[in-house]
Amino acid sequence: MTDAEWYRAPCPRPSETREREAADRQNALTKPPGSLGVLERLAIRLAGLQDTGRPRADKISIVLFAGDHGVTAQGVSPYPSEVTVQMLQNFTQGGAAISVLARELNASLEVVDAGSLAEADLQGVVADKPRSGTRDFSAEPALTADELAHALAAGQRAVGRALKASPDILVLGEMGIGNTTAAAAIAAALLDLAPLEIVGAGAGLDDDGIRRKASIIADALERHGLVPSGIPPLAVLEAVGGLEIAALAGAMIAAAQARIPVLVDGFIVTAAALAAVRINPSCRDWLIFSHRSFERGHQIVLDALDAEPLLDLRLRLGEGSGAAVAVPLLRLACALHAGMATFDEASVSGPC
Amino acid sequence: MTDAEWYRAPCPRPSETREREAADRQNALTKPPGSLGVLERLAIRLAGLQDTGRPRADKISIVLFAGDHGVTAQGVSPYPSEVTVQMLQNFTQGGAAISVLARELNASLEVVDAGSLAEADLQGVVADKPRSGTRDFSAEPALTADELAHALAAGQRAVGRALKASPDILVLGEMGIGNTTAAAAIAAALLDLAPLEIVGAGAGLDDDGIRRKASIIADALERHGLVPSGIPPLAVLEAVGGLEIAALAGAMIAAAQARIPVLVDGFIVTAAALAAVRINPSCRDWLIFSHRSFERGHQIVLDALDAEPLLDLRLRLGEGSGAAVAVPLLRLACALHAGMATFDEASVSGPC
Repeated sequence: MTDAEWYRAPCPRPSETREREAADRQNALTKPPGSLGVLERLAIRLAGLQDTGRPRADKISIVLFAGDHGVTAQGVSPYPSEVTVQMLQNFTQGGAAISVLARELNASLEVVDAGSLAEADLQGVVADKPRSGTRDFSAEPALTADELAHALAAGQRAVGRALKASPDILVLGEMGIGNTTAAAAIAAALLDLAPLEIVGAGAGLDDDGIRRKASIIADALERHGLVPSGIPPLAVLEAVGGLEIAALAGAMIAAAQARIPVLVDGFIVTAAALAAVRINPSCRDWLIFSHRSFERGHQIVLDALDAEPLLDLRLRLGEGSGAAVAVPLLRLACALHAGMATFDEASVSGPC
Repeated sequence: MTDAEWYRAPCPRPSETREREAADRQNALTKPPGSLGVLERLAIRLAGLQDTGRPRADKISIVLFAGDHGVTAQGVSPYPSEVTVQMLQNFTQGGAAISVLARELNASLEVVDAGSLAEADLQGVVADKPRSGTRDFSAEPALTADELAHALAAGQRAVGRALKASPDILVLGEMGIGNTTAAAAIAAALLDLAPLEIVGAGAGLDDDGIRRKASIIADALERHGLVPSGIPPLAVLEAVGGLEIAALAGAMIAAAQARIPVLVDGFIVTAAALAAVRINPSCRDWLIFSHRSFERGHQIVLDALDAEPLLDLRLRLGEGSGAAVAVPLLRLACALHAGMATFDEASVSGPC
């Protein structure tokens, strides 16, 4: 393993001792054992990940990666590519959903231009990109190997910056007109699925648009030799990936290597998670899946990752918004774990 | 309608104008229309209920009603009845789940003894009960008509006290060893279901215990002439009800009459909601269903109320804990509605 292959270095394991201690505590708290359901399991899991008896979700760092997609030339989105850059400015000016959520949650928000079409620097945005937009994968590979390595490392660098604030949880989000197309292509290639099984409406395609999008992906998978599957994940990312998607995968691996739990957002971040887990399976333990998106293929990718998300609110916005909305659940799970009395402390009788 | 029948007075309708205005605003915000899913619908619904362009879920009043159940003599719960009073003290001393959640949410918490076995006043608990515990409904009616009227009015009185703080949302919870048995009996009678279809594990019965519980309910429904159904809801509450369950139903109707949206908790509060809606159908608009409990019959009662809950976290604790956990979703939905920029404000392009 060379330095250039940092993403293959193993991630630590959660502490089984802390998990066992936390489970014992949950069983001693004044409630029927198991009656706080998913909130109990969250607290136990966070105790193991954070290696502590008092898991926390107070300090939240949100990192949002943006990128543009050459395949938008094929009409795969109802919105024009210029919206990506317009939204980058909306994020930093405070008007986007994730901006509002970050404020409400008292979370930091860093916006990384991992590959948008912006040619100039944007105020408040960290630019870290090997090129502006991917190539149109319906005609040629989206990225070169060097460009992909840059994008993976951009994710690692963003995690390095976020770590300075010692976050309890990292929330990852994305923006990029056309990126449900890239995400669906990645997932179809890695899972050996017909694109029509996994392609959804994205930002709002109709049924004809969905069929066209699937057909463009199917042709591209054929052209790049990605069917049948078994192709290494890095080759898939080069062929049909997105710069923000690769940065997300790099960020997940880097966060897991640094023992920071990651709250995964919707379809696109989950597709990036699938790529990350295929590149480095040991990062899987560190991924907490926040919600089931309304985007059609999300459930398939969640199933492939054996992931059961916390929320199901028919969100399909991206930006990390679904992950942000799940943050209060983590906070309440931690507060219950730390703050409830035990049967002994409260002098409450157990079962007859 | 006499004064004694206050619970039959119609509840106001939500404002359709405010709902329409809120829906228009949601469609103008910088996101694909509909992409915030349930959060959009929540904001729109709260705008109509609160009759405002800026719905809020800041000020939360939690009211928890407790009661004991004579039917526990038949061994329907793994926990002894004394736990109800022990938990009343745990609530006010801050060690219970709902105490922790109230603190975290900066919500007020009032605990009402609507009919526990406590003979003395408990510090920090409002006593408002016609008797201590219900009669064993396997042998005789649980309540007289006067006792039931007292319990319904106890709910109304609690809402009257809560209203002094002008809450944006009322959260209702309950505690009572044996009250999944009463709730299942009420729901089975009102929905004309075989008890075995709706009875669950409660605080932790095994399969044999569940079968015994269902058989005790089936015998009682027969004894009290509640099968086949069609019996008025007040008669059902007299026969197999609980004091805290009747108080919950009264509180829901009183809150709806006073235009306060109610966040409904799990199986027992939902069974009380079913009774409330049968007593006064116009209260239905004011009920927001917070979560799908792990208690087996909950989905059936939710379906009967045409209710789609916000969360599904396998909670089965009661106390209002599931409703409290849903409060941040309401808060974030309101913050997004108020705080996001429109496409015009942010100079973001719409669809091509």
